[in-house]
Amino acid sequence: MRVISTIKEMKSAVREVRGQGKSVGFVPTMGYLHNGHLTLMQEAKSKTDFVVVSIFVNPLQFGVGEDYEDYPRDLSRDSSLAESAGVDIIFAPTVREMYPKGYATFVEVEKLTGVLCGKSRPGHFKGVTTVVTKLFNIVEPDIAFFGQKDAQQSIVLKKMVEDLNMNLKIEIVPIVREKDGLAMSSRNSYLNSEERRAALALSQSLEMVRELIASGERNNLVLVDEIRKFISREPLARIDYVEILSVPDLEKTEFLQGSNLIALAVFIGNTRLIDNMVLEG
Amino acid sequence: MRVISTIKEMKSAVREVRGQGKSVGFVPTMGYLHNGHLTLMQEAKSKTDFVVVSIFVNPLQFGVGEDYEDYPRDLSRDSSLAESAGVDIIFAPTVREMYPKGYATFVEVEKLTGVLCGKSRPGHFKGVTTVVTKLFNIVEPDIAFFGQKDAQQSIVLKKMVEDLNMNLKIEIVPIVREKDGLAMSSRNSYLNSEERRAALALSQSLEMVRELIASGERNNLVLVDEIRKFISREPLARIDYVEILSVPDLEKTEFLQGSNLIALAVFIGNTRLIDNMVLEG
Repeated sequence: MRVISTIKEMKSAVREVRGQGKSVGFVPTMGYLHNGHLTLMQEAKSKTDFVVVSIFVNPLQFGVGEDYEDYPRDLSRDSSLAESAGVDIIFAPTVREMYPKGYATFVEVEKLTGVLCGKSRPGHFKGVTTVVTKLFNIVEPDIAFFGQKDAQQSIVLKKMVEDLNMNLKIEIVPIVREKDGLAMSSRNSYLNSEERRAALALSQSLEMVRELIASGERNNLVLVDEIRKFISREPLARIDYVEILSVPDLEKTEFLQGSNLIALAVFIGNTRLIDNMVLEG
Repeated sequence: MRVISTIKEMKSAVREVRGQGKSVGFVPTMGYLHNGHLTLMQEAKSKTDFVVVSIFVNPLQFGVGEDYEDYPRDLSRDSSLAESAGVDIIFAPTVREMYPKGYATFVEVEKLTGVLCGKSRPGHFKGVTTVVTKLFNIVEPDIAFFGQKDAQQSIVLKKMVEDLNMNLKIEIVPIVREKDGLAMSSRNSYLNSEERRAALALSQSLEMVRELIASGERNNLVLVDEIRKFISREPLARIDYVEILSVPDLEKTEFLQGSNLIALAVFIGNTRLIDNMVLEG
């Protein structure tokens, strides 16, 4: 496995691979890899001939006062994990390599980014779509793999690829959870043991609402209210949003109908966690 | 020569060509071809193996009250001209093909687009960079050719390609002029004979200032003022802007130093014309 840090070298490595007629799979990450990431890599490994993983904590997608500085970083640990997952190249550029002095170009998906995390974190998705466009141009993958945990991100990136006629496919891989249900996230490392227990409120509220729906409840106001009540019982939890929206348009709906996304963002102490469930129509 | 109107067909045609190891040259246009466009095609022909010309009047780059509806269109005339220039494919999509219902993704170059035409025509360059990104993804050229007449556009697109790490080169081709000096433009077709004569104010003012500079004048305020005075003598002319800016940063400068762009936009009657001159440092 090679670790590459310059755009030029990355482009030339992938050109060589493509010249051999191999397909390229790509897993963009911010590093501090967990089993969710490793599942993406296995998926890439099974569907393409050559797998590139990027590790880049993208300053553009963090807001003022967010955890850009504190975001966990451990390239040597990540390299071992990626290597054992059969990854061929890790692309780990510096911030200056990605955003040289005078950088000025941005990609933005409108509408879809005005709700959920886009509303709570203004500018976040502009940072995501910009860096992902750059990474797609650098790696030129046939398929890029993203996790369903970032549900809105998946929908926004699929829309971007479609709108801009990019030459690749996006595959979304299901959420990977800890045994007790907590969705895997690099940010889980922020939690102390008390918070780790409290964090179960997210996945458990989704389980609870799944049963409510199974028992016939279809009114989204009622469902959202039940989730809010459930999470509010946990003293360490502070809700950012609980929403039920149509998929893929992310519009408010009164009743469950068609495909729906139930999405939550909840602060546990100072750590903001997200989780979601998609109900196929 | 083929005329293609769908994105899918265009992508597959160019993939086939690239599969044969041929390089692809691309000339994006809004049609109503003139000798400036034909020069771009000849340049593309001389530098690449296979030449694609797009003809698409892009609604996104026109502001409210601008000439989108009136912009001249003549695909059959354009096809003959392109064919005789040795073009291999004309890509002429509909607006619906390029911007289907619900379209929401935009590419924007900041800073550089806040001056000159970007200031006079808010949203113009966002439309240009968005459509050009789409066209680049559809045609996947090795080299794309643009005219120096749209000086700011050239600078903005080069910045976009660099910032987003796009896999192509941009070549800028010098302005092609009528015998009397008028820069070629599809919009010249709007001019009546009186206006056609008045339009010479643009190129003649640049000739005048070239002589002033040759005689030693370096103060940009003086140079701009002389151009303004020259153009103001023409009763049919109304100045939109006259500016001297550094290249490629497009920043105001007090004195000629390094590379500079002298750029003008002038209404002749209702027709907005542009012209420019670059002084290499």
